[in-house]
Amino acid sequence: MFETPSKSKVNQDAQRDREGQVCRVALIGFGTVGRAVVKILCESVDSGLLLTHICNRNVESKKQPWVPASVVWTDDVQSILNSDAEIVVELIGGLNPAHQIVRSALEAGKSVVTANKQLIARHGPDLLQMAASHGCQLEFGASVAGGVPVLPALRTGLCGDQLHGIAGILNGTCNYILSRIEHARIPFSEALEEAQARGYAEADASEDLDGGDARAKLSILALAGLKSHVAPESIRARTIRAIDAIDFDYAAELGCTIRQISRADLKNGTLLAEVGPCLVPNDSPFGRVQRNLNLVLTSGQYGGDIAFLGAGAGGDPTAVAVVSDLMFVAQSLSSRRRRDAATYVTTPNVSSDFETPWYLRFFVRDQPGIVARLAEILAAHRLNIDSLLQKPGFDKAALPFVITLEPCNDSQLHPALEKMSSLDFAIRPCLCLPILR
Amino acid sequence: MFETPSKSKVNQDAQRDREGQVCRVALIGFGTVGRAVVKILCESVDSGLLLTHICNRNVESKKQPWVPASVVWTDDVQSILNSDAEIVVELIGGLNPAHQIVRSALEAGKSVVTANKQLIARHGPDLLQMAASHGCQLEFGASVAGGVPVLPALRTGLCGDQLHGIAGILNGTCNYILSRIEHARIPFSEALEEAQARGYAEADASEDLDGGDARAKLSILALAGLKSHVAPESIRARTIRAIDAIDFDYAAELGCTIRQISRADLKNGTLLAEVGPCLVPNDSPFGRVQRNLNLVLTSGQYGGDIAFLGAGAGGDPTAVAVVSDLMFVAQSLSSRRRRDAATYVTTPNVSSDFETPWYLRFFVRDQPGIVARLAEILAAHRLNIDSLLQKPGFDKAALPFVITLEPCNDSQLHPALEKMSSLDFAIRPCLCLPILR
Repeated sequence: MFETPSKSKVNQDAQRDREGQVCRVALIGFGTVGRAVVKILCESVDSGLLLTHICNRNVESKKQPWVPASVVWTDDVQSILNSDAEIVVELIGGLNPAHQIVRSALEAGKSVVTANKQLIARHGPDLLQMAASHGCQLEFGASVAGGVPVLPALRTGLCGDQLHGIAGILNGTCNYILSRIEHARIPFSEALEEAQARGYAEADASEDLDGGDARAKLSILALAGLKSHVAPESIRARTIRAIDAIDFDYAAELGCTIRQISRADLKNGTLLAEVGPCLVPNDSPFGRVQRNLNLVLTSGQYGGDIAFLGAGAGGDPTAVAVVSDLMFVAQSLSSRRRRDAATYVTTPNVSSDFETPWYLRFFVRDQPGIVARLAEILAAHRLNIDSLLQKPGFDKAALPFVITLEPCNDSQLHPALEKMSSLDFAIRPCLCLPILR
Repeated sequence: MFETPSKSKVNQDAQRDREGQVCRVALIGFGTVGRAVVKILCESVDSGLLLTHICNRNVESKKQPWVPASVVWTDDVQSILNSDAEIVVELIGGLNPAHQIVRSALEAGKSVVTANKQLIARHGPDLLQMAASHGCQLEFGASVAGGVPVLPALRTGLCGDQLHGIAGILNGTCNYILSRIEHARIPFSEALEEAQARGYAEADASEDLDGGDARAKLSILALAGLKSHVAPESIRARTIRAIDAIDFDYAAELGCTIRQISRADLKNGTLLAEVGPCLVPNDSPFGRVQRNLNLVLTSGQYGGDIAFLGAGAGGDPTAVAVVSDLMFVAQSLSSRRRRDAATYVTTPNVSSDFETPWYLRFFVRDQPGIVARLAEILAAHRLNIDSLLQKPGFDKAALPFVITLEPCNDSQLHPALEKMSSLDFAIRPCLCLPILR
């Protein structure tokens, strides 16, 4: 999984560092997300980022052979603050000492990238103010919905809209438990135990089940998307502990299922906001979110509704959000370093030779032996028939029927298609469509 | 719909302009999207943008009373290039004269924001190179999927990933026609006529139906997301004209429906790419996209699959993408203008008093008169029962049943809930869930 970085990459990085083309990054907190961030930084060729420090308690036991030797391992936060790193990545989590570390880094003129939802939910506006007054940046794209780029989209592609509503499935633990009860009709306690056994829920899952986690995230979304500062504690949170299998039976009678929904609507200067289980229609975007995925819906005055769906947690997806923030900060820190977007573009060979199963639809003048002839051609080209479909009741002079094929390449299918379309009973060219799974 | 800008906004804008806090914007092409962009710029309070010029042919006939008097109307592109505008918005569309105008603007050191997919698909890499060498920016977030912020997300929240695949429903016209055939089982020609009558398809819809529009967009997504330069002409495009109602019957037998899919996969240095109708499972994200919506799925090495769904076209959604690009360019043009994110945040009143229909689930010791007692309490609080659900076969000592209520506010429901939970036959507190529609 983890590879030692190639010599050429290490040399390249050192060269770019001497030329001031890279941005120096120190990371504090080498846990699951921290390791994944370091892995991406070590594997990527042209991120414009150079990892200089990794800081963690008991750092000796943390050292990894796949991290370049140039990286300094330390357990001393102060040495990071005194270093020449331009960006500090805070991945310790929790309020203390993370809050003090982020403040100190900003005061030292370093930009900060963090995945810390509790910190941003509580102190986001103050820290943003502080960053601005020190001429540096604070980014927290990983603090909500992990790898789903909702916060970056609010900052960029949606900033031209006036949003009035945000709603989401923001807690993967709750969604896992509720969708398990939905499918297996097991009691709540059993679904929770299962989630704990599979690592989707912590031993004390109160923060997740009772809405504390989701309302911190909702508070951050309200800040970034609705420009509204709301303390997480002032958002009502209802627990999902009272939901049981029977509720899914009754919900189903209403065409619904049950999900933990976090929602905020700005209405006449009041922010309506809450977190808790809700009935949602089975065929709605929320109703379809399974397992531990996250979904966020934004509603804007001009752009209407936009939905974002993806992996809301996990080391790698969350690390993508952190590294993306790092690249964003690095690019805006110095226009000298602004990457020429065209430089990193390659011109690959282009092909349409996808391998998929296929749908072939024929219109024929009915006569004996049609299927035999077609099957013979397909066999001669080593193409396997998956199914034969013929609906009754059609005109024998223009009879539609369908053959589906097992996966094969377009290039393999093409000669057979040409032969089949030239048969005398074919009254239209065969329609050939890929079947995507 | 369009309001005259308030005096205070005009004065505020002029004040900010004198202080150099705003970025001066000239717009070329006052069509549907252009009008919507100007409307958003006139209505927004703190975009950091000041509209200085509107350029269009026959400009006299285009003038609008709701545009501030300070805006210069002109039909002379050269006067825009000679002006002090820092950003030029190109919304003429097509290759000529748009290509020459964008080149001239970049040569004049002006950044460019465009929604022109054909221009970027054909000349994107060259123009990006040109922008970089003149120290200015070129943004084209509106060129793919209108208001769905896929391109901004590729530029920011997903840039830390290594994407290997992108697939999407990128043409609203095709999706409208195919989902109409799906639901009404009408012939292709009838669905096309209907789309034309409703303004979802042009009189000559070849670019849409035969895939020309979608492959230009796919080429842009490949550039931005897969860092691959591929000419639109080298992407195979299959038409949707051969699809008929019977194909939806056969697709349904396979658990599928039919959509125009644009897809690109980077595999061993080759870009597999094509545009055309495909069978997709009914319960897949693609299968569920109805009407003229757009959906884009990205697949990354670290972050997995992310889905983006929203309005792919239309004046207002596309204008959101243009204005968002303008704000992005304005912020990066000058750090002096970098907006203090905390400044524009308000601290609203927070409430959880949503108005929704409700699901009330009771566990009771069965005895006569329970429903009567509950109904009496609800009536006394002016709450309307929508349905009563009681499944058979449960233990009479712990009988679950459900009452759903018509929409009312949480605050209106709460006192009734308290009364109902204290009734002697209630063996658990009533579970009360909002029903979202």
